[in-house]
Amino acid sequence: MNQPQFSHSYLYKELKTLSKEINKENNHLKKLIQHPDRLNRFSIRINNFFYDFSKQRIDEYIFKKLIQVAREAKIKNRFLKMASGEIINVTENRAVLHTATRDFTQTPVFLNGEDIKLEINQVNEEIKTFSSKIHQKRIKGYAGKAFTDAVIIGIGGSYLGCEFIFNALKHSIKPIINLHFLPNVDIDNFGQIIKEINPETCLWIVISKSYTTTETMANIEQALLFLKDHHLDPANHLVTVTSKGSPGDDPSNPVLASFHMFDFIGGRYSVTSAVGGVPLSLAFGYDIFIRFLKGCHEMDLHASNAPEEKNIPLISALIGIWNSNFLVYAAQAIIPYCSALSKLAPHIQQLHMESLGKGTTMNGQSTDYKTGVIIFGEPGTNAQHSFFQFAHQGSPFPIEFIGVVNPVYKRNQTTSKGVYNHQELWANMIAQAQALAVGQDDENKAKYFSGNRPSSTILINDLTPESIGMLLSFYEAKTVYEGFVLGINPFDQFGVELGKILASDIRNQIGKKNIDMSYHFDSIDPVAKFYLDTLFKGSL
Amino acid sequence: MNQPQFSHSYLYKELKTLSKEINKENNHLKKLIQHPDRLNRFSIRINNFFYDFSKQRIDEYIFKKLIQVAREAKIKNRFLKMASGEIINVTENRAVLHTATRDFTQTPVFLNGEDIKLEINQVNEEIKTFSSKIHQKRIKGYAGKAFTDAVIIGIGGSYLGCEFIFNALKHSIKPIINLHFLPNVDIDNFGQIIKEINPETCLWIVISKSYTTTETMANIEQALLFLKDHHLDPANHLVTVTSKGSPGDDPSNPVLASFHMFDFIGGRYSVTSAVGGVPLSLAFGYDIFIRFLKGCHEMDLHASNAPEEKNIPLISALIGIWNSNFLVYAAQAIIPYCSALSKLAPHIQQLHMESLGKGTTMNGQSTDYKTGVIIFGEPGTNAQHSFFQFAHQGSPFPIEFIGVVNPVYKRNQTTSKGVYNHQELWANMIAQAQALAVGQDDENKAKYFSGNRPSSTILINDLTPESIGMLLSFYEAKTVYEGFVLGINPFDQFGVELGKILASDIRNQIGKKNIDMSYHFDSIDPVAKFYLDTLFKGSL
Repeated sequence: MNQPQFSHSYLYKELKTLSKEINKENNHLKKLIQHPDRLNRFSIRINNFFYDFSKQRIDEYIFKKLIQVAREAKIKNRFLKMASGEIINVTENRAVLHTATRDFTQTPVFLNGEDIKLEINQVNEEIKTFSSKIHQKRIKGYAGKAFTDAVIIGIGGSYLGCEFIFNALKHSIKPIINLHFLPNVDIDNFGQIIKEINPETCLWIVISKSYTTTETMANIEQALLFLKDHHLDPANHLVTVTSKGSPGDDPSNPVLASFHMFDFIGGRYSVTSAVGGVPLSLAFGYDIFIRFLKGCHEMDLHASNAPEEKNIPLISALIGIWNSNFLVYAAQAIIPYCSALSKLAPHIQQLHMESLGKGTTMNGQSTDYKTGVIIFGEPGTNAQHSFFQFAHQGSPFPIEFIGVVNPVYKRNQTTSKGVYNHQELWANMIAQAQALAVGQDDENKAKYFSGNRPSSTILINDLTPESIGMLLSFYEAKTVYEGFVLGINPFDQFGVELGKILASDIRNQIGKKNIDMSYHFDSIDPVAKFYLDTLFKGSL
Repeated sequence: MNQPQFSHSYLYKELKTLSKEINKENNHLKKLIQHPDRLNRFSIRINNFFYDFSKQRIDEYIFKKLIQVAREAKIKNRFLKMASGEIINVTENRAVLHTATRDFTQTPVFLNGEDIKLEINQVNEEIKTFSSKIHQKRIKGYAGKAFTDAVIIGIGGSYLGCEFIFNALKHSIKPIINLHFLPNVDIDNFGQIIKEINPETCLWIVISKSYTTTETMANIEQALLFLKDHHLDPANHLVTVTSKGSPGDDPSNPVLASFHMFDFIGGRYSVTSAVGGVPLSLAFGYDIFIRFLKGCHEMDLHASNAPEEKNIPLISALIGIWNSNFLVYAAQAIIPYCSALSKLAPHIQQLHMESLGKGTTMNGQSTDYKTGVIIFGEPGTNAQHSFFQFAHQGSPFPIEFIGVVNPVYKRNQTTSKGVYNHQELWANMIAQAQALAVGQDDENKAKYFSGNRPSSTILINDLTPESIGMLLSFYEAKTVYEGFVLGINPFDQFGVELGKILASDIRNQIGKKNIDMSYHFDSIDPVAKFYLDTLFKGSL
């Protein structure tokens, strides 16, 4: 790949100039949005998904230039190459094929001469069979009891997406198997979960591509000891989701079931593979998982096929870059006006920040421009009563609002101040975007609102698996497109390696002392020594 | 108050100059921390609480200047004035006396000639009596069954602190009454909670200072209808925590119990008042609540009495200002290496961002410097597998690590790679701070780490109520001190008003259509009309 450094392009310089223009008082958002065609011009509706970027700080000309950035970087073409199996994750020498996990077309996807969709379908068939046997109580625990709960042992990309989807769907679909998440090596994460489950009716689902992740390995050990303490055979309680040939894929290590994941799907893009497929099919049934995949597929088709100027994730990516590199916002909030989407922000925090928080281009050069921003968020209206003071009067940051047209709970309700709760929720969502944009003059500076604070609003129809699938896939495609424009690799994560290496040195020291309590931490740096001495002393 | 604008002071200008100096390669953190006395010099230990700021990007001279900032602004003196009942929240004409709620000294605190500690103690006595009657099953629900659960109806400061403490303590102390939180006006928040409770054994605790908050009022209505549907008398199931004389304090409105909160305690500082006292005493027992208060008090004494250069919250505040205004970091992460502290970051996000996200000084001038930063966070090691790629190789931001010396779960455990889970957790915490500070050279730019990324580390001994209290009070005092230096009012929140006003206009429109479905939204702006039409149509 020979993409020139983003900041060296003539369009980058032109956008820098345009950003100075848009910063003038005359181009305040309150003026931009007054154009009668504004919403129509700066919004896109596809089936069951609506994206309103009319309150972003752009005008027709900037929009045109941003689209030109996308065209010149040929990012749509690269998206298609990605989906067709090209080795675009060059630093790890891998294809990137999360889209294949939900590709319901008849087109094969070849990798090394083989149609990987056949392999994916086979895993899905295995998930279907296994989950239905669990639901039909044809597979039970060692003590002969049907399963009621499952603990997911997995960290980062091995659980965040699944946790988001599980929480989003459990409002509308009663889980058959309740899911618990054990990502953290913190023993109190384990200690808390075992209070919530019955050992005889609980599955332990280990999700790890490499089956070497330190936290996951440590938690498997605790789970195995726990099963032993309760006289339960792991062969009846343990399920693995891992790469073919990993240490977890050893048939001599008996487990209840084992499912494959693939090296062409990165952790943070893996929720539509067996990583999400196994727990979500157990929780809600395989049919629900497939409906979720269909929603993802619909958005994938849009992301692949819609022209640049009508392409929701692509435009959203361009706006992300405009906001970070040209309007110099350091963060972006995701505020779903929907309790069920409470785990969306933590998932996108990983997806975006791990994909885009890079210091190196695909060409191996240091970046001298912003790659990604800090993502954070809480559901609205909660966030209004938490950090929205800062959003209105502190340092500005863009916000993405998400609204759901139809709530799940529709039984008898009462009104307050003349409106139903769901209407109140929307009144606030609409009002916040407006208030942030227009602001308000006041001689009393404490009641002065500068406004000019940008936001987007996404609407989905409901909390069905299909709608949630579209939302997930929207963010995946947006992240990928943003990486393509920035000229970085959104699929690797070398930045996490240094910490692992240093932790390993410290772990070795601890291990030595565990064997011989007279061991002193004299060979390590005095700060680490201080902390380890405190840990072993057991008090400050 | 006639504090000069912070940015106009000679110290501000001097710190600006010093920040240019510290940005030179020669003052890279990896060099600063090599000084053999570094940890000793830049850390403070008090009883059961340790604060290590040796990996902040400061040197002796900068530290001295920062302390001078605190001295010249007389912030310790103002802290004492606050605690003694002076009307320091001038924009709302109120005293600020959250410290009085946990003041176990014999010193009275006078407000308008009355010792408000008497009133506080009286409320606490009522909480003690009520919670113990509930626990002894002397007070039961309408159907004659003992209570098992309580739903907190309250938003923002009325629940975030309580949610943090409840989650922190429930790892070590089994709740007698399980708490659920209903902050959001989202009807699906309500719909989800009623799946988790038994109506006959559930208390509804309404927490609202004004008893007018829209979300809370709407949720009371749903709760009352729910009780009616289950033929339960609200007089046996409803508890209120509200201001004397508020609409919720009406004796003709029969409730099971009612507790007072005071206008001299702001929402985000209120967890040690009845706002936290009622639910936490119900959950864990009044004795536990008092132990928590004692921890807060201990930190309050330190915050009040320790000299500037030994004062943990004060120094932490100065470092926050140094990082935001001089090193120009836009955000700060809070990373507890402790699952039980998973709700700390959302609470501090409110406490910090609502207190400090201001655009106006106490003198009514617009600020031309940074007031507060974006606060976000997730527990470690989870965060390492989520956004730490960005922390190491993306745009830098300071991190506050929190470690707990002793875990709760201490039963039989097994090792992995030669170490116990809790040791693995600490190995990672130590390694991350080190990796961020020192970085690593590499010819391969993908494996290059610039380092020089600042962090602090806080240690507490355990997850006892006392330790959690110290942690809470540390953040409260830090926030207050930071506001004092910045010359802003950390106790008001006028920035949330504009959104409320605009929401009210939209609500009125919806109300009209609820009454007359032929009503058209023609009198409002076309964007709001589009959203409301979509909402009423029920599909995109």
